[in-house]
Amino acid sequence: MPSTIRAEAFPARTPAASLIFTTVLSHGPLTRADAARRTRLSAAAVTKAVRPLIEAGYLVEDEDAETRPGLGRPANPVRVDGGRALFIGVKITGDEIFGVLTDLCCRTRIARNIPLTARAPKAVLVAVAELVRELLTEAEGFGVPVLGCGIALAGEIDRAEGAVRYSPFLQWRDVPLAELAAMTTGLPVTVDNDVRALTVAEQWFGAGVGLSDFAVVTVGAGIGCGLVVHGRVVEGTHGVAGEIGHLVVDPAGPPCHCGRRGCLQAFAGDAEIVARVREVTGTGVMDSAGAVALAHAGHPGAREVYAQAGAAIGRGIATVANLLGPQRVIISGEGLAAYDLFADQIRDAFTATAFGSAARCELLTRPLPFEEWARGAAATAIRSFVRVEL
Amino acid sequence: MPSTIRAEAFPARTPAASLIFTTVLSHGPLTRADAARRTRLSAAAVTKAVRPLIEAGYLVEDEDAETRPGLGRPANPVRVDGGRALFIGVKITGDEIFGVLTDLCCRTRIARNIPLTARAPKAVLVAVAELVRELLTEAEGFGVPVLGCGIALAGEIDRAEGAVRYSPFLQWRDVPLAELAAMTTGLPVTVDNDVRALTVAEQWFGAGVGLSDFAVVTVGAGIGCGLVVHGRVVEGTHGVAGEIGHLVVDPAGPPCHCGRRGCLQAFAGDAEIVARVREVTGTGVMDSAGAVALAHAGHPGAREVYAQAGAAIGRGIATVANLLGPQRVIISGEGLAAYDLFADQIRDAFTATAFGSAARCELLTRPLPFEEWARGAAATAIRSFVRVEL
Repeated sequence: MPSTIRAEAFPARTPAASLIFTTVLSHGPLTRADAARRTRLSAAAVTKAVRPLIEAGYLVEDEDAETRPGLGRPANPVRVDGGRALFIGVKITGDEIFGVLTDLCCRTRIARNIPLTARAPKAVLVAVAELVRELLTEAEGFGVPVLGCGIALAGEIDRAEGAVRYSPFLQWRDVPLAELAAMTTGLPVTVDNDVRALTVAEQWFGAGVGLSDFAVVTVGAGIGCGLVVHGRVVEGTHGVAGEIGHLVVDPAGPPCHCGRRGCLQAFAGDAEIVARVREVTGTGVMDSAGAVALAHAGHPGAREVYAQAGAAIGRGIATVANLLGPQRVIISGEGLAAYDLFADQIRDAFTATAFGSAARCELLTRPLPFEEWARGAAATAIRSFVRVEL
Repeated sequence: MPSTIRAEAFPARTPAASLIFTTVLSHGPLTRADAARRTRLSAAAVTKAVRPLIEAGYLVEDEDAETRPGLGRPANPVRVDGGRALFIGVKITGDEIFGVLTDLCCRTRIARNIPLTARAPKAVLVAVAELVRELLTEAEGFGVPVLGCGIALAGEIDRAEGAVRYSPFLQWRDVPLAELAAMTTGLPVTVDNDVRALTVAEQWFGAGVGLSDFAVVTVGAGIGCGLVVHGRVVEGTHGVAGEIGHLVVDPAGPPCHCGRRGCLQAFAGDAEIVARVREVTGTGVMDSAGAVALAHAGHPGAREVYAQAGAAIGRGIATVANLLGPQRVIISGEGLAAYDLFADQIRDAFTATAFGSAARCELLTRPLPFEEWARGAAATAIRSFVRVEL
């Protein structure tokens, strides 16, 4: 076992301790009174929860406050000591694996990626282990332990079991990934759906901070959706949630790989867009860059394919807004590279489909490269470490 | 002011007291230890919250337990004293108003209804006041006060403001109903969307007890949906949530009163079904009973209209399941009268559209007459009284 791996347990696995830790993590330095207000815990409960976290070095008290004049009784803010521990986050895509080494504040310290040449579980596990080994080697320079690893990938994930129930892009069924990766990496491993992992990062550090209800919609190879309702990421009773990719936009639409017709995925997935652009333009365009270039060059057929993709995405987002009434929808994913080609159609279709006041939901685009998705995976590892089940 | 109305405040408006009260209300007699386990509060917090509730007579301690042999230290269950207070619930439909007088356990003691002959706010307020007056008179026989009134109706409701933002069936916009009805009835009034009110009742007393994530889908004049996620009813940031009636099932479908085409409402709303049956059969059928009769008589056109309605409803339910992964979807509403005509299509379309494990969500039909909806309105009044904002 590398010297950077050390078994260590969060000192106070109570819901209150988890909640306080993640609240301070997300909102930065907070006084105990602020923490109590934000978590709706009593002052006594906060004080009790904070003490062992300070003793273990996860939280530190900012002593500067004591010297500030005129404040009366000092109310020292506490903050997470980012340098106290490290975590690894891994995002698996169809042809590349992205990894980050983060500190306890989930700030990325090192980012690495390696190509994925085969998609069988064994090949992916070897690649993940190699990437993690690289990051563990880098971690040695920090002199603090790596406490966990989060792996995020698209598909139906049973987070509690750490199992990949079904991953269409890897063609996996029922792979106990957390267990296998824990053996090959030597780290405690958490596995989660990639969009949900990204949503955790957005909730803690991104455009979802302070919001009790928001959604992340990702556009790219797949169309994904992460949902936060009543302050918590929606997991789905059986591991399925936020599945908007197979929302049927038009039963007469193009066939989808799932066997149905007219799914949002069939209109707006990267490969699907490329195939339709190839078809309508009669060109040999083979990838998104080529399809975008054709549309940018003004080819009307190509532009229309993007316009239809945008309209389908806008309707998918409106469906989320009509059902859940979120404060904000964050649109991200590698598909944003073509955003200028369908931004108007997304907004128009959203406005036309959102019902009544649901149209007041804010739409926000936010480019988040795959390193950010890997950081989301690290956030799920931190969450597992502090055992937030609230 | 009638003798039955008395201003009275819940003795402990803390989140813990609300949570304990509603947990005992919903789960029946509970020991303090059971209540602590279910609410995840500490034993000390439960004991502290229970005391003033017992002193005020809202909870009573079941003394029998003390005499049970062999149990060691007595752990007396506490339960809500239903006879301690009364509430009124009112459900407004397009042509009738339903009212119930319930006890503090939300058990219906008296049910009344009166016709609604006009839909302007003033006419509705007069009718509501008359119905409430009748129920207040009945309440005198119980010798305990009526502490609040809940009014439930379809549409976009701002519960916090007590305002009807938009009610399509009454053609109201921005009516401060809670304030107006409080003046005419003399009671504290809570206003909520009718399906959300029904969902509260299902969560507390119905097929949602003990479930953290479920949905209620109602089929009838309108197609509605109430959602419970992470143990709480989804309200929507701007008052819109659960709006599946205007989910676009087929952009080439029949026109909808909202101005779009192919909404679920356009396929499966009562009036829409009747109109389509009239059209395809060339008969003069004018109401649901007539349309159902035609279909039951085997008229293929009429049967097909119901089959399409069922397929649309099944797809709407699958959309909810794909996004939120609920444990159960409860199907109700007056449209259940025709359930045998579309039950198979609902299930088939649900199975075909639910993604992966989301198909494991349980579908349950449950006939709930309008008195139950009124009871849901009374439940929202009880909720307002105990100020559950958790």
